[in-house]
Amino acid sequence: MSVELERRLRALEDRAEIAELIARYGPAVDAGDGERAAALWAPEGTYQFDDTVLDADGVRTLVHYDTHVEYMRRGCGHVLSAPRIEIDGDTATAVTHSVVLVHDGDRWVAERVSANRWELRRLPEGWRVQRRLNRLLDGAEAARELLSP
Amino acid sequence: MSVELERRLRALEDRAEIAELIARYGPAVDAGDGERAAALWAPEGTYQFDDTVLDADGVRTLVHYDTHVEYMRRGCGHVLSAPRIEIDGDTATAVTHSVVLVHDGDRWVAERVSANRWELRRLPEGWRVQRRLNRLLDGAEAARELLSP
Amino acid sequence: MSVELERRLRALEDRAEIAELIARYGPAVDAGDGERAAALWAPEGTYQFDDTVLDADGVRTLVHYDTHVEYMRRGCGHVLSAPRIEIDGDTATAVTHSVVLVHDGDRWVAERVSANRWELRRLPEGWRVQRRLNRLLDGAEAARELLSP
Repeated sequence: MSVELERRLRALEDRAEIAELIARYGPAVDAGDGERAAALWAPEGTYQFDDTVLDADGVRTLVHYDTHVEYMRRGCGHVLSAPRIEIDGDTATAVTHSVVLVHDGDRWVAERVSANRWELRRLPEGWRVQRRLNRLLDGAEAARELLSP
Repeated sequence: MSVELERRLRALEDRAEIAELIARYGPAVDAGDGERAAALWAPEGTYQFDDTVLDADGVRTLVHYDTHVEYMRRGCGHVLSAPRIEIDGDTATAVTHSVVLVHDGDRWVAERVSANRWELRRLPEGWRVQRRLNRLLDGAEAARELLSP
Repeated sequence: MSVELERRLRALEDRAEIAELIARYGPAVDAGDGERAAALWAPEGTYQFDDTVLDADGVRTLVHYDTHVEYMRRGCGHVLSAPRIEIDGDTATAVTHSVVLVHDGDRWVAERVSANRWELRRLPEGWRVQRRLNRLLDGAEAARELLSP
């Protein structure tokens, strides 16, 4: 296979793999499956939202937080938008919106709408999350900055 | 073309075709086009939501249900998340969230937020839905199970 | 590289590039970055929503509209669904839903839910938006028509 062909194939595969990785987050946490959520992160990766910073072990326990348990009891969907993705060799950055919809009477309410910046790394076993930053889109400049290039 | 190259190309094409198939569902039903919605299903495929099980003919008539006609009269969007996709030869499973937003005064309200499991088959004419399972994320365990591997 | 292999690779790359182009819109406008939003359009491209028609220069100024400035002050997310894409040589059509979620007290409210039809062109520098049509899904037939083939 020529170098050029390999480069084009790899670029497509990287993009597909990263989109798949991100698409696994919502179903994992909505199913209450902390193992599957944590498996998306690199061993030394982190997840920062609001004033909290978790390591991969912390992501595993996220589904047991009071807030999350209550979301699941009421019924919730963590819905992520199709990602914007930029790949640079063995690192990549993706940007998505995320919306947490929670059941409330005869409808669902958007209790969180956030900007997300995903910093990704290619490990021998595949792409993993090195750092995910999540901030509520509540008018704060810090959230808007996550959406910039 | 080498066997390995064909395998890699095919994997990318399968993923793109399945994502496209699923992305056609929302626009078809919001446009009231039952033919186009039904065309996503295999001839013997089924769609199960709440306590209803439809075959492909049933999917064709879905847009004429009272609930759906009323959704369209008020204005509605069936918004699906980017799918998680696992392909295994000539079958595949995809998982998405779906959100039905319905116009209500000066805003839109999420009247349904569901977990969806799409079981897909490769037919000579392309990938089609063999079975789609949809359950409201209202706290029921059955909905969360659709989101598991 | 064989003609057939080049055709298959190109089809995959076109689809990925168009999905990426569309995924850049929401983050750009939510960050208040009119330059990045306008850069998605062809020089003579247009964006039509409600009763407004903008050219690419107009898209650049969109983030300074009173409505948009107020959205950003309150906190907003322009969330687009994964696109349905049809490519025909050097032109393509994509269809998405878009949802504008605006912060309101302790939740976010869907202030706009629209049908979007994106007419795209391949330019020497890559795919760009030739025409984007956006209409509120408020029960109007004109919005549903954007979702048809």
